[in-house]
Amino acid sequence: MRKDEVRKMFRTIMENVQQKTPLIHCVTNYVTVNDVANMLLACGGSPIMADDISEAAEMTGICNGLVINIGTLNSRTIDSMISAGKRANALGHPVVLDPVGAGASLLRTSTVFRLLDEVKFSVIRGNISEIKTIYKGSGSTKGVDADISDAVTKENLPEAIRFANELSKRTGAVIVITGAIDIIVNGTKSFVIENGHPMMSKITGTGCMLTGVIAAYCAANPEMIWEAAACAVCAMGLCGEIAYEKVNQTGGGTSSYRMYLIDAMSKLDADSLERGKKIESR
Amino acid sequence: MRKDEVRKMFRTIMENVQQKTPLIHCVTNYVTVNDVANMLLACGGSPIMADDISEAAEMTGICNGLVINIGTLNSRTIDSMISAGKRANALGHPVVLDPVGAGASLLRTSTVFRLLDEVKFSVIRGNISEIKTIYKGSGSTKGVDADISDAVTKENLPEAIRFANELSKRTGAVIVITGAIDIIVNGTKSFVIENGHPMMSKITGTGCMLTGVIAAYCAANPEMIWEAAACAVCAMGLCGEIAYEKVNQTGGGTSSYRMYLIDAMSKLDADSLERGKKIESR
Amino acid sequence: MRKDEVRKMFRTIMENVQQKTPLIHCVTNYVTVNDVANMLLACGGSPIMADDISEAAEMTGICNGLVINIGTLNSRTIDSMISAGKRANALGHPVVLDPVGAGASLLRTSTVFRLLDEVKFSVIRGNISEIKTIYKGSGSTKGVDADISDAVTKENLPEAIRFANELSKRTGAVIVITGAIDIIVNGTKSFVIENGHPMMSKITGTGCMLTGVIAAYCAANPEMIWEAAACAVCAMGLCGEIAYEKVNQTGGGTSSYRMYLIDAMSKLDADSLERGKKIESR
Repeated sequence: MRKDEVRKMFRTIMENVQQKTPLIHCVTNYVTVNDVANMLLACGGSPIMADDISEAAEMTGICNGLVINIGTLNSRTIDSMISAGKRANALGHPVVLDPVGAGASLLRTSTVFRLLDEVKFSVIRGNISEIKTIYKGSGSTKGVDADISDAVTKENLPEAIRFANELSKRTGAVIVITGAIDIIVNGTKSFVIENGHPMMSKITGTGCMLTGVIAAYCAANPEMIWEAAACAVCAMGLCGEIAYEKVNQTGGGTSSYRMYLIDAMSKLDADSLERGKKIESR
Repeated sequence: MRKDEVRKMFRTIMENVQQKTPLIHCVTNYVTVNDVANMLLACGGSPIMADDISEAAEMTGICNGLVINIGTLNSRTIDSMISAGKRANALGHPVVLDPVGAGASLLRTSTVFRLLDEVKFSVIRGNISEIKTIYKGSGSTKGVDADISDAVTKENLPEAIRFANELSKRTGAVIVITGAIDIIVNGTKSFVIENGHPMMSKITGTGCMLTGVIAAYCAANPEMIWEAAACAVCAMGLCGEIAYEKVNQTGGGTSSYRMYLIDAMSKLDADSLERGKKIESR
Repeated sequence: MRKDEVRKMFRTIMENVQQKTPLIHCVTNYVTVNDVANMLLACGGSPIMADDISEAAEMTGICNGLVINIGTLNSRTIDSMISAGKRANALGHPVVLDPVGAGASLLRTSTVFRLLDEVKFSVIRGNISEIKTIYKGSGSTKGVDADISDAVTKENLPEAIRFANELSKRTGAVIVITGAIDIIVNGTKSFVIENGHPMMSKITGTGCMLTGVIAAYCAANPEMIWEAAACAVCAMGLCGEIAYEKVNQTGGGTSSYRMYLIDAMSKLDADSLERGKKIESR
């Protein structure tokens, strides 16, 4: 994909989000749920959280996209996730999976495979350890953070792209691996993104928030899932950089950083994204 | 009600909140619960969150007021809401209902009617779509936000006041409809408030937070529910304006706005409210 | 303990936290969980929240310490707390109990005693009303805040230290009572800390956040539980003071204060703690 094509495409994607205000149903964890809701609003979407089995599918029905995030998985909500996922599939709505901590417990790993069995995902976004767990069918995720030995580097990037593409073909989902280097693949084509800042890992929920933004971007651009996911990753990473500049100026700490991150998303426009994006297609 | 009467009354209401530090039991959603707790503290109240059936009524018993918010309704907590509501009724404590998303799912709509059957509410606060759903017995709420076609305008204001008063008579509750124009009615008398700022809808939880503030104001002023609810709506709207000024000065985004909103409530005094209020009684 | 010994010890404790990045499993309430996660990251730890019975013990197994916080206790999570607690005990990991609202309801009081029966705690941290409830076997906690009649003052300090030490001997846990004056006892020895600021009680979650920090400090210093707990209390109190200075300069309110509190923790170093600590050993 040529650079001017990416530029034009990103502009279209952002305009669609602004114009459509996609409604995103989130069945998500209670740790970062407020940040996800505020980030969704900041990026131009609108959040609905509902996880009871008796309304999950119905709520999906009035929305434009669905997030399934297993961050504080419990037996009560697994069925709700599946019920909402099936409805979204039936309606042709984008569904994004955030397999938080897959590999860290049997419950999480097995639930991810059950979800993959019963729901067709448009996008799966995780850190490298979580995605490797799904790829291999087992894993050794260190809690909810990526294992350091797993980090994507310039050296192992081709290998990471290869297995991500394989997983993409197997699941039919766009695979998004986030870290210092982000990879977004659709089975044959790949974006590599180097936006972002290490301080993003010093607050909880940047992954969950990004998953929400991806869902909003995809819901407003259902014909361009791979491109919309990449645009969301770029936008989030750039906001991480803008927030770092700001926290540096003001001498704030991690909580200020969290605020500046959401602030940046609420003020981001296509021109800033065009200037700030560090994306390459392969 | 004459202007100087409103002024004097608002001052009394705020003083009572400050002096009594009303303890508010909230059975509420997990999306905005932290903001509700911090807003309750900011306005001079004190929050307790407890939603297990085995302690709900007991916790209500040590408090001065109760909030029932169906934002992330689940089957486990509906009974807790009713149990807490009945106890609050028995004790004569103000009970405020926030019917988040009523009309958006059968579960929410039917639960609201079950709650109205079993609990006597002092105040019901929602957006126009939610309140219309309760008024009509069915609805088409677009998620948790008001349907645009439902917005209260100068033109349909008399009609909105009419149906709100009818609902107030039917339920015995003060009805609060919030939006660009806010309406607070008690069945015969109405306040119309034009404080607030559109940016309030760019963060999650302003409705939930307001419901908490209404509960604190009513719990400290149980003999003046209609007036206390109006004072809370005015206070919240004014804080929304103050926060907007602040965010404009600092160049912040929506997350800064959220912070400034709670900040403003924590610093609000009767003099500022007197100068800033945009209220009319009809 | 001599002053230079405390100084050296605190430095070692903080260095251990920074070097080990202790992973803390939290079975905690949904009101303050996001603040707890961000405060844990700010202090140099890493949070995992997981409360389903089918993964609670397993998650404990990959962590270095455990927090059990009964803030929004429900029947579903009590068994998870016990399961996680037993696993942590078997592994020799520090376990910290935050008995939020013990004494305010039968459910909370009885659950605390059940937890004490089945799990061995390294530290119990609460306000004076909660700790008194545990000491006496019953109580009259006013919601989740300490009863004013219970406050630790210069006058009743020796009496408070006495009963805390008795409770420490009975439970085998370091007892931390926080308030205007903080007490940390291990059955025979006591620290008294006067860091902190009244504004800490104007936001929700300072107690929960401190409990998280204590767990991180203890998990990184399992041979020095009493000292690590004291160091965490000092650090948190000092951050409360730094945040107050900051909010005073900027003219912010309580939500700014919350942000500055976490900011301060994310920037705290051993030198600042050495200069700012107000600790005495007895």
